[in-house]
Amino acid sequence: MKVRELIKAFKPYEWEPSRKEISERIGIPEEEILRFDLNTVPFRPEEILKALSEKLPSLPVNEYPDPSYRELREALSEYLKVNPENIMVTVGADEALDIMAKTFIDPGTVALVSAPTYSMYRITVEALGGRIVEVLRNPDFSDDLEALIEQSRKPETRMVFLCSPNNPTGNLTPQEDAVRLLESVGCAVMVDEAYAEFSGTSLVNLAEKYENLMVVRTFSKAFALAGVRIGYVVASRKTIELLSKVRPPNSVSVTSLALAKIALEKADFLLAKAREITAERERLSKALSRIEGLTVYPSHANFLLVKFEKADALKVYMELLSRGLVVRRLSGPMLENCLRITVLDKASNDKLLGALKEILGGKG
Amino acid sequence: MKVRELIKAFKPYEWEPSRKEISERIGIPEEEILRFDLNTVPFRPEEILKALSEKLPSLPVNEYPDPSYRELREALSEYLKVNPENIMVTVGADEALDIMAKTFIDPGTVALVSAPTYSMYRITVEALGGRIVEVLRNPDFSDDLEALIEQSRKPETRMVFLCSPNNPTGNLTPQEDAVRLLESVGCAVMVDEAYAEFSGTSLVNLAEKYENLMVVRTFSKAFALAGVRIGYVVASRKTIELLSKVRPPNSVSVTSLALAKIALEKADFLLAKAREITAERERLSKALSRIEGLTVYPSHANFLLVKFEKADALKVYMELLSRGLVVRRLSGPMLENCLRITVLDKASNDKLLGALKEILGGKG
Repeated sequence: MKVRELIKAFKPYEWEPSRKEISERIGIPEEEILRFDLNTVPFRPEEILKALSEKLPSLPVNEYPDPSYRELREALSEYLKVNPENIMVTVGADEALDIMAKTFIDPGTVALVSAPTYSMYRITVEALGGRIVEVLRNPDFSDDLEALIEQSRKPETRMVFLCSPNNPTGNLTPQEDAVRLLESVGCAVMVDEAYAEFSGTSLVNLAEKYENLMVVRTFSKAFALAGVRIGYVVASRKTIELLSKVRPPNSVSVTSLALAKIALEKADFLLAKAREITAERERLSKALSRIEGLTVYPSHANFLLVKFEKADALKVYMELLSRGLVVRRLSGPMLENCLRITVLDKASNDKLLGALKEILGGKG
Repeated sequence: MKVRELIKAFKPYEWEPSRKEISERIGIPEEEILRFDLNTVPFRPEEILKALSEKLPSLPVNEYPDPSYRELREALSEYLKVNPENIMVTVGADEALDIMAKTFIDPGTVALVSAPTYSMYRITVEALGGRIVEVLRNPDFSDDLEALIEQSRKPETRMVFLCSPNNPTGNLTPQEDAVRLLESVGCAVMVDEAYAEFSGTSLVNLAEKYENLMVVRTFSKAFALAGVRIGYVVASRKTIELLSKVRPPNSVSVTSLALAKIALEKADFLLAKAREITAERERLSKALSRIEGLTVYPSHANFLLVKFEKADALKVYMELLSRGLVVRRLSGPMLENCLRITVLDKASNDKLLGALKEILGGKG
């Protein structure tokens, strides 16, 4: 078989192992493993699941979903205060990225990322034959706006990927920076707001004003539905129409659509939970900073980036893993000797703190 | 914004309207509309839904699915009698097509389709910048094997798309033809078996033998789960590994995975239902053939292709639509003046028969 040249050397997404695989590796029961590596929330949304349980037997799962996902778009419209025509529903945020790459990326063209950032941008662009140019962030992790603008103006540049709050650094792109970028460049600018509910800020209200802005959101984080794969794009009507040309017909499951709609009805509850998590993040951040040799960066999301000044991060990772505490390893420029830690509930976070103190020999 | 040239002229998938949209257009309540246009089965799998209802409150929807979908692959392995390593789970069959295009299609390369056939093959290949060459079927709709083999040997050909039973013509590609093609050509051959459970035949047992064979299956048809979007690929280990490079990480919802697994536990029930539908197909086919001026083609699937020799198919379509009976319009070579009719339950099919007799003025 003749395979694409680029596939032969393709560097795929590094999947995180399942609880079962981790359990088999370290010999700790699945349910005792604490996952600080996935940036998901530490609770099951029971009310939402119960509400779907009741509806489920009458759900016409034998028929395809409404390809326009109208009901969910209308519910999102109320939540976001934008028109339903400004919203496109997708299979997680990842399908949104794929649709954008198919719309803007020709082989040999360029997409910029403000690095370090989420690795799926690179993977999505490279699968379409595009090339990623990493514009390294400033030492405080803020976007290097001048460099991004300069690179964006090159004729081969088709897209800019921003992530705000940024994964894995946790900082925001200030609205004035995003606006300056949107006004300075002609190419499409995606802003990934997967963690927006933890930061309390968003650019969705600018979507109709800037035709080149595409905001990506998800139900996977604050909305506690990572497992059911729902994301969405907020953009101008014209841009949504453009993206819709290559959107797969009804790829989102009817059960996922139903869960997302119920979740929006319970948005107040979920947003209160998000505030609890950000309060707990501040507590955890302070407690971590008190451990010697550990730098904790400010975060607007539900995770913390920490740098080990004296210990080897990989060794710390392995030590934590052997205790059933899974954190995220990182690599690449600016992330040397760093780990990313998802904020879980107080009891779990305290376990992590205790283990870290033990491993590093520090004092609390 | 600089958009890809090919997107500007892109011919997207023509989405079927939702029940709600049809209802608003023709003024008939949603629940009275009969959909003969989607090739889905006419029953909701209530036992399966009830089983998930009970499990749902304890499902960890806040966590991502296991990216390897191991549990479902193991259940499929038993159902298909192939190894779990020969199976890749996807968001409906459409994600499988996209993954294949990303693996094999470079811009300017060619994929062959045995036409007329399902339109998503074209759309998926064109989104990657590839070109579709339609190899027209023989007058009895069998694949033109010689032409397919000849075209497959051209250096620019990267893939062949077969569909068996073929949508919308209903006929099978005989196993010996598929084998001849697989042995004669070097390129990848996809065989879409979305309707396999209605035909009782499959090529999955050849997957390990022919590295260039990729069989695509789905839970959308006989398994009554179109709404939850689960498909899968059966291929050699080596080919599955290759495709996995660009498979999106955990795109399939945990609720969909759970439903599919329960459906496999109830496979005997669902396959019995499929046999009922094929029996009803034969009854409907005979009854339709007795209507004057109507040719019905033999089918191995849950739908029938009919040709109107004297009436205008579009007019018939509109007349049926005004009665709340939605059939599928078709266009292109070999499908002139044809409609595609999904086999529903006896009462619904009888309504369609009655309406057709009325519209065509024929006698039953």
